[in-house]
Amino acid sequence: MSLPTPLRGVVPPVCTPLTSDQEVDVPSLRALVEHLVAGGVHGLFALGSTSEVVYLTDRMRELALKTVVEAAAGRVPVLAGVIDTTTYRVQEHIRAAADCGADALVATAPFYTRTHPLEIARHFRALRQTADLPLFAYDIPVSVHSKLPAALLRELAEDGTLAGVKDSSGDEGGLRRLLVELGGHEGRASGPLAGFSLLTGAELTVDAALLAGVDGVVPGLGNVDPAGYVRLYDAARAGDWGRAVEEQERLVDLFGMVDVGPEGEMGRSSSALGSFKAALNLLGVIECGATVQPQIPLSAESVARVADRLRAAGLTPVR
Amino acid sequence: MSLPTPLRGVVPPVCTPLTSDQEVDVPSLRALVEHLVAGGVHGLFALGSTSEVVYLTDRMRELALKTVVEAAAGRVPVLAGVIDTTTYRVQEHIRAAADCGADALVATAPFYTRTHPLEIARHFRALRQTADLPLFAYDIPVSVHSKLPAALLRELAEDGTLAGVKDSSGDEGGLRRLLVELGGHEGRASGPLAGFSLLTGAELTVDAALLAGVDGVVPGLGNVDPAGYVRLYDAARAGDWGRAVEEQERLVDLFGMVDVGPEGEMGRSSSALGSFKAALNLLGVIECGATVQPQIPLSAESVARVADRLRAAGLTPVR
Amino acid sequence: MSLPTPLRGVVPPVCTPLTSDQEVDVPSLRALVEHLVAGGVHGLFALGSTSEVVYLTDRMRELALKTVVEAAAGRVPVLAGVIDTTTYRVQEHIRAAADCGADALVATAPFYTRTHPLEIARHFRALRQTADLPLFAYDIPVSVHSKLPAALLRELAEDGTLAGVKDSSGDEGGLRRLLVELGGHEGRASGPLAGFSLLTGAELTVDAALLAGVDGVVPGLGNVDPAGYVRLYDAARAGDWGRAVEEQERLVDLFGMVDVGPEGEMGRSSSALGSFKAALNLLGVIECGATVQPQIPLSAESVARVADRLRAAGLTPVR
Amino acid sequence: MSLPTPLRGVVPPVCTPLTSDQEVDVPSLRALVEHLVAGGVHGLFALGSTSEVVYLTDRMRELALKTVVEAAAGRVPVLAGVIDTTTYRVQEHIRAAADCGADALVATAPFYTRTHPLEIARHFRALRQTADLPLFAYDIPVSVHSKLPAALLRELAEDGTLAGVKDSSGDEGGLRRLLVELGGHEGRASGPLAGFSLLTGAELTVDAALLAGVDGVVPGLGNVDPAGYVRLYDAARAGDWGRAVEEQERLVDLFGMVDVGPEGEMGRSSSALGSFKAALNLLGVIECGATVQPQIPLSAESVARVADRLRAAGLTPVR
Repeated sequence: MSLPTPLRGVVPPVCTPLTSDQEVDVPSLRALVEHLVAGGVHGLFALGSTSEVVYLTDRMRELALKTVVEAAAGRVPVLAGVIDTTTYRVQEHIRAAADCGADALVATAPFYTRTHPLEIARHFRALRQTADLPLFAYDIPVSVHSKLPAALLRELAEDGTLAGVKDSSGDEGGLRRLLVELGGHEGRASGPLAGFSLLTGAELTVDAALLAGVDGVVPGLGNVDPAGYVRLYDAARAGDWGRAVEEQERLVDLFGMVDVGPEGEMGRSSSALGSFKAALNLLGVIECGATVQPQIPLSAESVARVADRLRAAGLTPVR
Repeated sequence: MSLPTPLRGVVPPVCTPLTSDQEVDVPSLRALVEHLVAGGVHGLFALGSTSEVVYLTDRMRELALKTVVEAAAGRVPVLAGVIDTTTYRVQEHIRAAADCGADALVATAPFYTRTHPLEIARHFRALRQTADLPLFAYDIPVSVHSKLPAALLRELAEDGTLAGVKDSSGDEGGLRRLLVELGGHEGRASGPLAGFSLLTGAELTVDAALLAGVDGVVPGLGNVDPAGYVRLYDAARAGDWGRAVEEQERLVDLFGMVDVGPEGEMGRSSSALGSFKAALNLLGVIECGATVQPQIPLSAESVARVADRLRAAGLTPVR
Repeated sequence: MSLPTPLRGVVPPVCTPLTSDQEVDVPSLRALVEHLVAGGVHGLFALGSTSEVVYLTDRMRELALKTVVEAAAGRVPVLAGVIDTTTYRVQEHIRAAADCGADALVATAPFYTRTHPLEIARHFRALRQTADLPLFAYDIPVSVHSKLPAALLRELAEDGTLAGVKDSSGDEGGLRRLLVELGGHEGRASGPLAGFSLLTGAELTVDAALLAGVDGVVPGLGNVDPAGYVRLYDAARAGDWGRAVEEQERLVDLFGMVDVGPEGEMGRSSSALGSFKAALNLLGVIECGATVQPQIPLSAESVARVADRLRAAGLTPVR
Repeated sequence: MSLPTPLRGVVPPVCTPLTSDQEVDVPSLRALVEHLVAGGVHGLFALGSTSEVVYLTDRMRELALKTVVEAAAGRVPVLAGVIDTTTYRVQEHIRAAADCGADALVATAPFYTRTHPLEIARHFRALRQTADLPLFAYDIPVSVHSKLPAALLRELAEDGTLAGVKDSSGDEGGLRRLLVELGGHEGRASGPLAGFSLLTGAELTVDAALLAGVDGVVPGLGNVDPAGYVRLYDAARAGDWGRAVEEQERLVDLFGMVDVGPEGEMGRSSSALGSFKAALNLLGVIECGATVQPQIPLSAESVARVADRLRAAGLTPVR
């Protein structure tokens, strides 16, 4: 399907459920897509960081993406992460994603190597030539250890290389400057970059980001409570900011689940992604809460704390 | 005067104008205070980072603080930065600030040295014992290179060590979690920590921060356009979010002045603080736009770009 | 061939020459291997960072590795980099490397994701089970953004997971502590970890590292002047420290080539790897100095400066 | 006394002993100076990071410096740290240090603020004009969070601003490049910068640094075992590298005392500086092992581990 311009709304990065023997759990992934679509989301971001994309082999990536595309069945667009270190490797993922039927692509700057804005520009331009699909820049310094400069994003928006940006930089001030440079609330709606899409990954401040004028949000926690994020988005679009804040606060509290893994005994990915998957398992959406090797599984005690968080947020575990 | 609990509103960090021979320009500083009070601000933060506090000798600090306190003349409370590397040095600044008549104190975690949350707690507790004045924690990792943990802030709020926090961490998600932990919009208004004050230094996203529930803002750019920030604050308090966003967008555009110093030819302080002072000089508030040594002065061309920004934002240079 | 325990000497990371249309240049790579073996090196590290491993597709990686193994023809052992984000992806590279005939493997900690020492341990243990080949840990925080803790390295050395470590952390003090913990000069020669190999990537301080007791060096610049590094190594082994320092100083001066790319116009990889390849081209070893996309090519002026550096170090360009 | 050019040898940063009520312990500091001079050191660095300089008030700094100068009594030169955030504040410390009789000054780049090489150059030039004393640049990125660029150091050496540099950057490769640019072993001995002094703070790799050509070392651990560092220095100067390495390995093992403070329960300063002071107390040199507030004191168990380290290194506790 063709992508709305701009892409708007709630576009969760879809978790990749595993079987207990570390294979992609296709039926659970289908069920998760149903859970998200039923929640009212506006798009799906497969193979993002929350999908554990960098933990998956190429084969597993393709299986996961194909499953999401088939399960979505054209009801909502599917963005595919094509995350890898540099241009040629990303281009291979682009070709695979196009073959799987993705509706758009999401790529980061080069990582592992020491790069430069001029090289990042060459990188995105080469990626754009690889397939006739809208390309989103994924700004995630915590993972790639460089920040996409606003001037670069603007240049690549203006020349048509980029269809949008997914901002997970945490730099809300920088994002706001970009929004205003692109015309602000007024100008963006009608100007030459009216179709350019600004999505935030900052799932704890979605109300604030929507107030500032972003088009949508890509919340990892949206796997667990898609309907909550959709209510938040709808309230904001309707200008009911009190309702938006109330919903956001409930979700911030729910987000506390990411800390259930005892600090010092596992990495942040293990704890956060483990908690999302545990929640999906507790809610009966997926069959197994396992994360990909070498992440450390949550203990039963940690899972019990996830259940507490669910209940506190009005979500009812079924296991 | 005694500090409102919580402290709310616009509390700009007051620039420290200099004469052309690098002395504190007392008449200009008095004029700046008038400019701010006339703009409707709710408090003044003397000796903050924007005040170039770490560039000033102790004598210059005291002269600046005394001038601000006298000029404020009880119309608005004056918070005093007591910024130094570790406990004993900060305590000396506290005594000086109390002697100057400051209404509250603002202190960072230890810096230069490698510290630890348990040591930061000891630090703030020792500071609190030094003078009978409300103490704010100043969370500014870009300068002190550690982040105040939310759990620590909460502990120090609950035991009465801290009266509030000035958050310049840029971690809006973390700040939101703290806000929700402290009770959210509802709970904070009535709970045991109702008097605890959360101020943000994020001057580009004040509308968003107020929506999220912070009590006030400490905008460096508020030196240049205090009335604009007060309008923004008032609109937000009145629930007129459309008006708040509009004002914020104008201020974001005005903020572009911080980039007038050519990149690669000076540090970010020289450029940003130089632009604020140049603007105050162009607006006729202060006599000279000099920053403190060893910062590099703005060129005439850079100052001309500051004037352009002022005009675009509806502020009229008089020089 | 089986790897010496410990592996000692000069083990350069082999550049991956490209044709002008960005394909692996097999004849040039064979010529480069001859150049290195003729220079007296003690091993070859294919698919390292200097080999632009993260820029190459899997197909290009295998072609490069196979070429190096065949060209080495058992004269020196070949270590293969198996660099990727996490366990399952690295395991695929391990299987490919084993099929290509590599004599040992070199792997980093997980990257892109936020990891933890306990997860890194699981990672290396899983890698060790994948193929019956000696495994080296590659400690390169500038790329993977975490540092391998000394206690972890020691644990993985003692339980047989690791055959050695390639230290590119730049933390010479930490490396020295590890060396002393492993027994120091005396103890390492005879103790239970006598076969554990400590290799440094610090090509500018090889004399110092050998004095401290490392077993060998993995110098990127060794592509350009392998014989120079072998003379340095031999002098150090013979205790002729004056000669070792003299050779090292000549190589430090030669290393200045990495700065020929104008700062601000390309990344450090483009400049450093571009200069090595330009030098190999100038010396007549490889046919083309191209680096992999999206790196920026050196200008003719920059290449001329590489030639100057070669002449100053007593190496004669033939083009 | 006038400073040797270049300054060579072992120049420990002198710990600042405290009484149990947190005052400078003058008799203990005098005893420590005797301990160091008796150990054969070639100079004393008062008010360095190891001296807890940023924890001391101006009054305590002056008392400590005056005590060291008087106790040294012209037997060895005394360098004085003049550590503060920016130019004017450092200049005040310079005047105080000159009044106390310091023989040379040691200053860092500006910190807390975001600075720039051009500003750092202005800073050092202004400092040099403040007193007629040799000025050393102190390169310590772990504390000031910027690195002094080699090109800047060279420029400030050539124009006479700097008499030397104390390198605590840990960037041994960068230091080696600077050494070679300054002429290497041969050129430095006779060239125009023959009097410029390169001192390393890297106390675990002194043998290696001396082999590379540095003039001297500033070892924090030198407080505990000055004679050991002097033996190491003498062996290196005599070309007896085997003996130098042996001594260095013993000192590396002794250095393990810095880890006695349980990780996670205190900062690295508390643990490292606490262990040095505990060792000096155990050896009978100083009366009390206290560190300055808000550092956390070592437990009795930690102190017992310091004693173990001393005994293992052949030093005998007397308490």
